[in-house]
Formats: sequence, C-alpha cells, structure tokens
Amino acid sequence: MKSLNKLKKKNEEGKFICVGLDTDIDKIPGHLMTLNKPVVEFNKQIIESTSDFAAGYKLNFAFYEKDGKQGLENLSETIELIPKDAIIIADAKRGDIGNTSQMYAKAIFDHFDFDAVTINPYMGKDSVEPFISFSEKLIFILALTSNKGADDFEKLQLNDGSFLFQRVIAKVKDWNQYNNCGLVFGATKIEELKENINLIADLPLLIPGVGAQGGSFDDILRVLSSANRINYVVNISRGIIYNSSSNNFAISAQNEIKKYNNIAKSILGY
Amino acid sequence: MKSLNKLKKKNEEGKFICVGLDTDIDKIPGHLMTLNKPVVEFNKQIIESTSDFAAGYKLNFAFYEKDGKQGLENLSETIELIPKDAIIIADAKRGDIGNTSQMYAKAIFDHFDFDAVTINPYMGKDSVEPFISFSEKLIFILALTSNKGADDFEKLQLNDGSFLFQRVIAKVKDWNQYNNCGLVFGATKIEELKENINLIADLPLLIPGVGAQGGSFDDILRVLSSANRINYVVNISRGIIYNSSSNNFAISAQNEIKKYNNIAKSILGY
Repeated sequence: MKSLNKLKKKNEEGKFICVGLDTDIDKIPGHLMTLNKPVVEFNKQIIESTSDFAAGYKLNFAFYEKDGKQGLENLSETIELIPKDAIIIADAKRGDIGNTSQMYAKAIFDHFDFDAVTINPYMGKDSVEPFISFSEKLIFILALTSNKGADDFEKLQLNDGSFLFQRVIAKVKDWNQYNNCGLVFGATKIEELKENINLIADLPLLIPGVGAQGGSFDDILRVLSSANRINYVVNISRGIIYNSSSNNFAISAQNEIKKYNNIAKSILGY
Repeated sequence: MKSLNKLKKKNEEGKFICVGLDTDIDKIPGHLMTLNKPVVEFNKQIIESTSDFAAGYKLNFAFYEKDGKQGLENLSETIELIPKDAIIIADAKRGDIGNTSQMYAKAIFDHFDFDAVTINPYMGKDSVEPFISFSEKLIFILALTSNKGADDFEKLQLNDGSFLFQRVIAKVKDWNQYNNCGLVFGATKIEELKENINLIADLPLLIPGVGAQGGSFDDILRVLSSANRINYVVNISRGIIYNSSSNNFAISAQNEIKKYNNIAKSILGY
C-alpha cells in the first residue's frame, strides 16, 4: 500500500499519534537490562502494547547509530516487530548531493524497508529528488522544526519578506509530482501552525514538539480540524515511551496514547 | 592530537588532498568481488597506496549505511586501516534537536572515533552544539555546497542583502568558542570562494566539488594562497578511487594524488 494511504487509513480510524522509538539504553527500566537485547525487548513491549492505538512509529537513526552495527541490528529487528498497517518513519534528516542521497534512499527504503523518511532541505532539490523518486513512499521534508535553533536560519526573513521555512514549503509543493511529499512542522508555538496553514495546504504533516518539548496536542488538532486538514501524525517520543520507568512501562505508554485518542475523538468526533 | 593540528601538520607537509572513500560495490574492480569483504579490501589497497601522499580520508556514511550493519562493519574496519596521522572525516551531514544530535555525536566520535564530521546547519545552534562540545574534534558545517541544489536555499538573499550561506558562516564564527569549527565550501565556481574569502577568514575548510563535479584544484590553491590561508583540504572521491578500474587501481589513485601534490608544490612552493 502507498504510504500516504496507510496514513490516511490510520487517521480515518481516529489514530493520530506517532510513537517515537528514541530508545536510549540509559533510560529503559532496569529489569530489562539483564536480557540479551534490552533495546529490542523494550521496543517489542512498547509496540505490542501500543500498536492498536497508534498511527505509526518513528525511529530516529541517531539512537541506533550510536551503538554502531549492533544498533543497526536493533533497528532492523524493531522494524520487523511493527505491524504492517502502521506507518514506519525513518527519522534520519538526511540530505546530500544527488549521487549520495541515492545511497541514503536505498539504505532507508530498500535495505530497511521504511514507509517514510525525514529529509533536510538545506542542499536543495537534487539532494531530495532521490528520495522523492520512491513514489510509493512518503517524504517528510523539514520546514519548521520544534527546537530553539529554528530561529537561527529557518525563521530568517528573505528579501521578499517571507521566511526561509516558507520558501521551503513553496519548493516542496513544486517538487511534489508524485503526491508523496510532506512536511515536518513543529508545534511548540501553535500560532505558527495557524499562520501557515493555508500555505501548507494539503501536504501531509509530521508534527514534533508535543510532550517533552512543550507543544499542545489539543491545540494542534483544533487548528487542523478547523482547516479541514487530514493526513497528519503528531509525534511523541519521551512523553510516551518513558511515561513510566516501572515494570508496567508498556501499559503506561498504552494509557498515554489512549488519552490522546480520546482527545482526538472529542475534538474531531471520531 | 587535536584534529586541527593534524590538518595543519599535513598542510605543512604539502598535503591538501582528502580522499573520499565513497566506495560503491557496483563500481569496484571485478577481481575483488571474489573476496570475502570486497569493499574493505578495495579501501585497504587505496589507503595503503595513498596514505603517504594524502592529508586525510573522508567516508560518506551513505555508502556504508546502504548495506546496513554489514556496511557499518565495513566502515569500522576501514577506519582501523587508516594511519593515525591522517585526518579521518565522517561525511555524515547530521543535525537534529540537541538531545538527538548528542547521540549522533557519540556515534561519530565515541563509537567510530572519527577526527572530524560534516554537519547540516538548517536546524540551528542547538543542533550543532553537541558536536562542537567535542573540543578536540573538527566540525565542518555546510555553508555552500557544490551541487546544483545550492541555488534553492543556500544562495537565497536575506532581507539584509546577504545570502543564507553567508549568514551560516557568520553564525559559525559566533559558535567557534573552542576553535574547532570549520566550513564545507564548494568550489565548482571559483568566484564564490574569491568573493567570500574575507568572510571565511581563518575557518578551516573542507572543499568538495573538484574532479567529477568540475571544480579546479589549481584555482582553489591560487585563491587560498593569495589570501595566505592554511588549514584546508580539497576532497576528491570518484576522481581518485575510480581513476582506473584495472588491477592497478590503487597505483592509479596514488599517481593521481601525486599530480595534485605537484601542483600544490608549484603553486605554494613546498
């Protein structure tokens, strides 16, 4: 199934939460540490407990690459554990010259078989094209991120009065020939989503910044609902997977998603 | 030894070429394909033949990640083969929220023990800081890249008349408290290096774009020499490692670097 259709189907079921599996061995419950592969076991329990309630999972490569080849083995084994109806996002923020981006695209879509990827647009069109050419996949391009550093460059004003991240959005629309491009748009400041909702138009969204980073899920859903928008996921990493450090961490994670799903139900009427 | 000092020493020996080990299994000589680890064997022969003449080596993660954990094993084994006086650059172009960039920095500097890294600045200061905090290492931040897509965002004009990549350079100077920041500055158009040489000031440079991408080594050295600049490497990947597809590919690679070193000698008087 085309990744965009997977996302759409999950949204239609009232599921808007993407669980960020930013699994850090220093933060997982102590009782798992005696096992052979604590990271995979942690992810397995989180996935089993949340997959009926989540729209998808986002794996940030950094948390796996830091353990070298063992980390990539953990990454592969985790992907295998995720049910096929969930959208699986490689949060890789890659981008390089065309010849090289082609290799990253092969890594993410051919080797690991992700449904979607996050891409850094700084190097421009030919750095993004090799990903877009996988027309069945979903390519979330960084527009506005949820961190403080977004002020340094993303929010610089260009000579036409618009901001850099707005120019990125405009370019992504130009590049979207296969209808498989989306945006990463941070939600720590809800006004920014409101002010740009018309510019974003119908591009799918991956929205970080809720939970540990301070954004409000309710506000995001209200803004998107008022604009009749579909095809989006709100990512929460630490706020779900480290919701409890007890033996019941997986149930706590499930309960946390259910809370968000109930909010979605009350706002969107699912 | 501090990575900057490694670079300086190599430059003082008249060595300015960084060999890009963008090793693609589809492009390496056929006679290696019967071996157990063709990529590592190819890199081994290139390193043994070139290490007396090169300033360093740049490994682009894309070419290794595309083979998953086997690729990262090839990456680790290749790093082990490089003499310790050469500067070893992780061409990773990473950048993420602070918490996550910290994990990438650990991967690159703790797990793989690289001397230097390339970083994408789009997400701003807190995405770069975790790398900079490794004060002995060298952090090459993308300013102007050598690809066509550089026109899309890097060369956008800001509301003060400067270009985005120039703002990046200014910010990198602000961030350079440990004297361990440098720039990636592409050299496909020599005028751009000339026009920005004063702005770049004494920041170390990693210069891509020579060889397969069309930049001229002679021109670059003339511009940098006129400005009394030191601490730079010119990266060449395909132009060196695939200079010949015969059994003598490693000798061909060596001869190619020697040509560049002779040019450096004639221009710089080493």
